[in-house]
Formats: sequence, structure tokens, C-alpha cells
Amino acid sequence: MKLSVFDQMEMGVNKWEANSAVSDVSIRGILGMLNGLCDSDDRRAVIQLGHGDPSVFPCFRTSQIAEDAVVDAIRSGKFNSYAPSFGFPPARRAVAEFLSRDLPYTMSPDDIFLTVGCIQAIEIVVSALARPRANILLPRPGFPLYESHAALNSIEIRHFDLLPNKSWEVDLESVESLANENTVAIVIINPGNPCGTVFSYQHLLKIAETAKKLGICVVSDEVYGHIAFGNKPFVPMGVFGSIVPVVTLGSLSKRWIVPGWRIGWIGMNDRGGVLKQTKFVDKIKGIISVSSDPPTFVQAAIPKILAKTSKDFFNKFASILRQCSDICFNQLREIKCLSCPNKPDGSMFMMVQLHVSKLEDVIDDLDFCIKLAKEESVIVLPGFVLGLKGWLRITFAVDPSSLEEGMQRIKAFCNRHAKLH
Amino acid sequence: MKLSVFDQMEMGVNKWEANSAVSDVSIRGILGMLNGLCDSDDRRAVIQLGHGDPSVFPCFRTSQIAEDAVVDAIRSGKFNSYAPSFGFPPARRAVAEFLSRDLPYTMSPDDIFLTVGCIQAIEIVVSALARPRANILLPRPGFPLYESHAALNSIEIRHFDLLPNKSWEVDLESVESLANENTVAIVIINPGNPCGTVFSYQHLLKIAETAKKLGICVVSDEVYGHIAFGNKPFVPMGVFGSIVPVVTLGSLSKRWIVPGWRIGWIGMNDRGGVLKQTKFVDKIKGIISVSSDPPTFVQAAIPKILAKTSKDFFNKFASILRQCSDICFNQLREIKCLSCPNKPDGSMFMMVQLHVSKLEDVIDDLDFCIKLAKEESVIVLPGFVLGLKGWLRITFAVDPSSLEEGMQRIKAFCNRHAKLH
Ligand SMILES: Cc1ncc(COP(=O)(O)O)c(C=O)c1O
Ligand SMILES: Cc1ncc(COP(=O)(O)O)c(C=O)c1O
Repeated sequence: MKLSVFDQMEMGVNKWEANSAVSDVSIRGILGMLNGLCDSDDRRAVIQLGHGDPSVFPCFRTSQIAEDAVVDAIRSGKFNSYAPSFGFPPARRAVAEFLSRDLPYTMSPDDIFLTVGCIQAIEIVVSALARPRANILLPRPGFPLYESHAALNSIEIRHFDLLPNKSWEVDLESVESLANENTVAIVIINPGNPCGTVFSYQHLLKIAETAKKLGICVVSDEVYGHIAFGNKPFVPMGVFGSIVPVVTLGSLSKRWIVPGWRIGWIGMNDRGGVLKQTKFVDKIKGIISVSSDPPTFVQAAIPKILAKTSKDFFNKFASILRQCSDICFNQLREIKCLSCPNKPDGSMFMMVQLHVSKLEDVIDDLDFCIKLAKEESVIVLPGFVLGLKGWLRITFAVDPSSLEEGMQRIKAFCNRHAKLH
Repeated sequence: MKLSVFDQMEMGVNKWEANSAVSDVSIRGILGMLNGLCDSDDRRAVIQLGHGDPSVFPCFRTSQIAEDAVVDAIRSGKFNSYAPSFGFPPARRAVAEFLSRDLPYTMSPDDIFLTVGCIQAIEIVVSALARPRANILLPRPGFPLYESHAALNSIEIRHFDLLPNKSWEVDLESVESLANENTVAIVIINPGNPCGTVFSYQHLLKIAETAKKLGICVVSDEVYGHIAFGNKPFVPMGVFGSIVPVVTLGSLSKRWIVPGWRIGWIGMNDRGGVLKQTKFVDKIKGIISVSSDPPTFVQAAIPKILAKTSKDFFNKFASILRQCSDICFNQLREIKCLSCPNKPDGSMFMMVQLHVSKLEDVIDDLDFCIKLAKEESVIVLPGFVLGLKGWLRITFAVDPSSLEEGMQRIKAFCNRHAKLH
């Protein structure tokens, strides 16, 4: 097995030779592998603390309004057709209005492009950034889909660190030293996957100013937008769209707990018109017009979903996540070989440091996850997949009783493997 | 405006420079442009004979069973989650069974990959074929999405002709002379877009034998599979999967009249195991695992849709299409400047030759379509977009009364512009 996620994809030179570098690096690939290792004789259910999809649990069921809106759209029979390339106009308008609620200016429907989830938004934006000798600044730890698409488009990857001792903020000094005249963009994920951070207004402002200085745009992945249950409010990067061009990525997947619905968006926060003048927007349009679209009936349901979902639904979601993050954080305190430097304020994840020196027979994060899956039927993501060896990513967006049980099993595992002296 | 669809996409060299070559070439782009030219003072409805999407007409409503299956999947609340990368296993099994009905062997669920419509299937397969110096054989006239994705992946495009005097069959001699050691695949579209052909068993066999001789695989776009209302039965290329590796592309879009649902598939008809040995299948897996998926609840509805849609639904669809193709073909006989060499046997389109010498003030196919849109609010696709200047593609999958009306307007237009002597 190939362990580095950050290798460029090599192209086979033989006529029929192709390689599978991409598949080795995906989160889904690693989680699938770990699931395959669980002991089928273990009568206990497998506990998934590896992926960000709580929708299987009844307490995380989506809002009735969202479900009804999609069913109504299908039943109308009016949305079986292809949608226009950039999206169904009322849906583009609804997303523009939705994003504008948190901005000091108003976005136009023309600034919005609908995509097949945020995954396709990433795919399209990264490939639109490609040009000869380009490099892109990606966070470490990060979300490896950016690495995969940068590699597929021959964009050089340069990692900047998120700093665990500074609430996982961006190491802006390293950003400045990494960038050069071929740098096209910096990517941030806020609220953070995998760290559970919610960046402050001040920090986002600094990121904007740094990007401006470097002459690059900011790609702000806000797929966890508004999933902030701690003390820090979520501030979209688009707030700084007058300082620097910001490409905002989002979707229904996380906040509405419907990742299977596959609808997302790209928003252009381009107050200075830079993305237009440089034809970046045209390039996005070009790629979108040869790409597949999100289902028309889901697009048609967007205006109702964005306007009508009740505050209650979001409040309940935030309160369960807060409870879950507390469970996870508190249980971790009792586990000697693990430590979590920052209690999460948002998203669905926390990064946990693994101290292998305190364990008898565990080599590294991957080894920990493999043995944990085999012995305890608990799935956790090894940090190396996210660029951070020696760490683990734990998803706390899991029904609270399963989470308690999962943490207990992790504790039992760690105790069993602890060094005795 | 850039008229050639077949230009390679040039990459901008400036840091921010990007171009929009791709958007210029899309069918959707041209149709959008033509729609924009229609006279807003014309009280008559615009008649769309340009695109293959009849779902807006009540007589082309999808089957109740398909609609119910999707609604049931949403209402169950069980399919809001991410699906596994390659597709929901029961859906992969259902597609394998569905395709196997017409084959002399049985496909395995592992041979099937679910995609966001056939558009994404094309995107994935073409990019999996990419390698240095590769070239691909594409039909002319064809479906320009193949050209776009070949260009995006730096695959050289080599066109072979479909022969109007031989029922639009593939010019196999030219195929042999075009191919070399860097040729990776030949693409066929059957039933044919844009020609409305249904290839015979004998012709498909010859294509298979030619591909075998050349050591290339066949990509068979069967998005119009089973839409055959003439005398020739539809034969899937997979029938020849023991002779040559066949990658079959399909979707629900056309036969179930639900292009907005965005679900399709890639099927590997690989009896000799060539696609596996050469790691082509691994490459497909790698790309799919970093790509977006079709909505999970639509995937979940697939088994019911494929197994339960009634014969009546398909028979009614075929009979309307037969009626429509008759209307179109018969009306064309009365129009001097247009001729249709082959009455369609399948799909939703026919290719019509334009004799500009018989017209007073029409320069070419694009000019014809522009003037027709402006003067008669009828949209028809100029052949240059499909690689065949001097021809038009007419969609007959339109509600019969609109089609009659559209053809009358075309006739009026042609009479008005006819040379007088
Ligand atoms: C940071 C980040 N971006 C994008 C995505 C993909 O989101 P979507 O489900 O909308 O495609 C995810 C999913 O986990 C994510 O964590
Ligand atoms: C030949 C051909 N292939 C593929 C497609 C795309 O099909 P889908 O709607 O399943 O993405 C079309 C759509 O018109 C087509 O004509």
C-alpha cells in the first residue's frame, strides 16, 4: 500500500498502463480498508468515528421541510428536464440571497454556480486554477481531495501548517514564505475539517490581507458553514471580498445532514472584479458547461429549503453536536496516550494527538487505526491521510450513545496496549 | 465567436489568464445563444428542435413507477447518506442484471460504476484513457462532449466519418488508416446521436473486429439504448465483449425521459480481462473515488426502476417517437433546400443536409439556424457543432403538435429564402 497522499499522479507510459495512485489516497479508500478489517465474529456493532456523515442516525434526520421540498419538486413532474448549465435560476438566486445574509454587500445570482455537492465544486475550481507551473497553498492537516485534484491537474502542492498551539490557526508566516509568482490560490476550510476550528474575524482578515499582498485568491471551503456550536461565531470569508477575491464553496450536505443529495455551489465574492477580468469566471463557466449537474428537482427545491428551514432544526443540530463534542473531549482526558489540544468549536471533527511512546506495540497512527478496527470494531481516521502523521481524526457527529460506547472502546484499547512501567 | 469545436484547449500562460475555449463548443452554449436571438415580439412559442430532452411535454412524462421509486427512497429517510464510491451495491447489481438481459453472458456488479448521468461517465472514461501521446477515434458527426474532454485531457482527436450514403455506418477503412500505436479507443454512439441510426449486428461485429485488429477498446455510448422504433433491433456492443474490450456507457436520462435525475453508469464488458490487466479499471476506480456521485436516493430507486417499469411505458414512448420521426421526415420532403438521406430508426435525432445553393441569402448552417431563430422562433442545431458543416440536427422528440408547427415554420422560412429562378 502506498502511504503518501501527496505524490503527484504518475501517468503510465505504456499504451494500456494506468495507475491507481488516486484511489490509494482517498479518505473513503482508507475507511473502506479499515472497515474490511473489523472482526466479523465481534457481535458488537462497528462504530464509525471516521467519516463526516451522521445522517444514518435518527437524531440527525434532515428537516421535514427539506424532504417535502424535494418530494414536491419530483411530484410536480416539472423538474425531470436538464437544468441550465450554471443552475436553475431561482436556485442560483436563492443561494445568492442566502450567502448575502452574512455579507456587507449583496451577491448576484450570476455569482453562483450550482454543483454536484462541494466535491464537484472542488474539482471544478481546482481545475480552473490549473496553468503551467502553477502552485497552490493547501492546509496541513487538510482535506485530501484538494491534493488529489491538484495532482490530477499538475498543480504543484505547497503545504502551510495549521498550528495546534494557536487554536489551529493558519501559520501566516509560512504562507508568505511558500508563495511565489506562480502561486494561484490559498485554500482554507472554515469551520475546519479536520480540526473543528472556527476562525475568528481577525484571523480571517489577516488571511485576506496576506493573500492580497501575495496577489492570490482565497478558496474558502465553507461546507461546514454555520456549524459553529462553541463561542466563536461563523464568519464567511466573503466578508473580505473587497480586500481579495474569494471563491466560496458550500453545500447542503453538512448543515442539512443530506450528503447523499449531492448539491452544492461555487460563489464568487469578487468585489474588485479580478476573477472576471482574469477570465477565471469564464474558465469556471467553460468547465461547468461540459460537466454534469446536480439533479434538477433538488435544484428546484433549494429556494424553499434555504428560506424555510426552521431555526429549531439548526438549534437542535448545534446542541447535539455540542453535547457530542463534550462527550468526546471529556472522555479523551481519561486516555493517557491521546490528547486533544483544542476543544472544537465547529464542524464535526477533532484532531487528537497520538503518543505512541506510551503504547507497547503500536507503531504509528495507521497502525493504531488498524488494530483498533480489528480489536474493537471502531473506525477512526489516521492523520497521515490528512497530512499529519501521529494524529487521529475523530468524528463526534455520531448519535451520543454510540459515541460514548466508541470512546469506551478506544479507552479499553489504549489501556490494554499501554506501556506498563 | 470561435467556430471550431475541435480546437485543443490552450492554457493561458499568465498567472491569472484563463480561457473559455471549452464553453464555446458546447451544444448547450450554442442553443443558449440561439434562444437569445428569438424575437421577443413574436407571440408564438419558441419551438425547441435543438436538444434531446422531451421531458417538458406531458406526453413524454416518465413512468409512475420510476417517480414513486424515487419518492419512496427519499421518504424512507434511509438514503440521505453518502453512497459508496462506486455506487450503492443493490443498484450496481440491478444495472448488471439489466445489461446482462441482452448479453450472451452475465455481468457482475463489480463491472458497474454509477455516475452522475452519462455526462460524468464520458468525463471519467475519457480522462482514464489519457496518457502521453494518446489519440482517440471519434465519430464525425458526433457528440462534442467527447471532443471537449479529450482536449481537456490532452488526448489527440482523430475523426472517422459516419457515411450518410451507407446509413451513417462507420467508415471502417478510415478507422484503420487513422489508428496508430498511440490510439487508445474508438467511440461509437448507438443508437446514434446525431444521425438516428441503429447499428446492425453485422456492423457492430465488424467494428469489434477492427478494434481487435488495432488493439484498442471500444467505448460504446448507449445512452439511447433500446430507443429503437424502426425495423432494426438495438444490439448492445457488449455482445462482442469476447472479441474486444467494450466500455459501455448508459443512463436513465433518455429511455426513462428523466435527464434531470442525473444517474448513469459505466459498464465493463471485459471478457478477456484486458481492462483489468492493463489497470484501466483501477484508473476508473481512482478517478471515481475523487469524483462526486449521483444522489443516493436515486441510486436506491434504481433496482425498482429497472425491474418494474412496464412494457407499456416503453411501447408508448416508441410509438410516439415513430410518429414524430414520420412527421419530421415527411415534412422535410416538401422542403427543397433540405434533405434527409436516412429515416431514423432510433434515438431522438436526424441529420438533415442543407443546400445553401437553393437559398438566396443564407451562408451556411450556422447562418440558417440564426436566421431561423430570429424569424421563426424555431431552434435547430447547426451541424458544425457536431463536426459536420452544411448540415442540421433536428430533434423530433417533441410533442407532435409542436413538431408539426415547427416543421411548418421551417418550411415557411425556406420558401421565403428560396432562390426564385
Ligand atoms: C472540507 C470538505 N469539503 C468538501 C466536502 C464535500 O462535501 P459534499 O458532500 O458537499 O460534496 C467535504 C466532505 O466531507 C469536506 O469535509
Ligand atoms: C450521445 C450522448 N451521450 C451522453 C449524453 C449525456 O447523457 P446524460 O443525460 O445521461 O448525462 C447525451 C445527452 O444528450 C448524448 O446525446
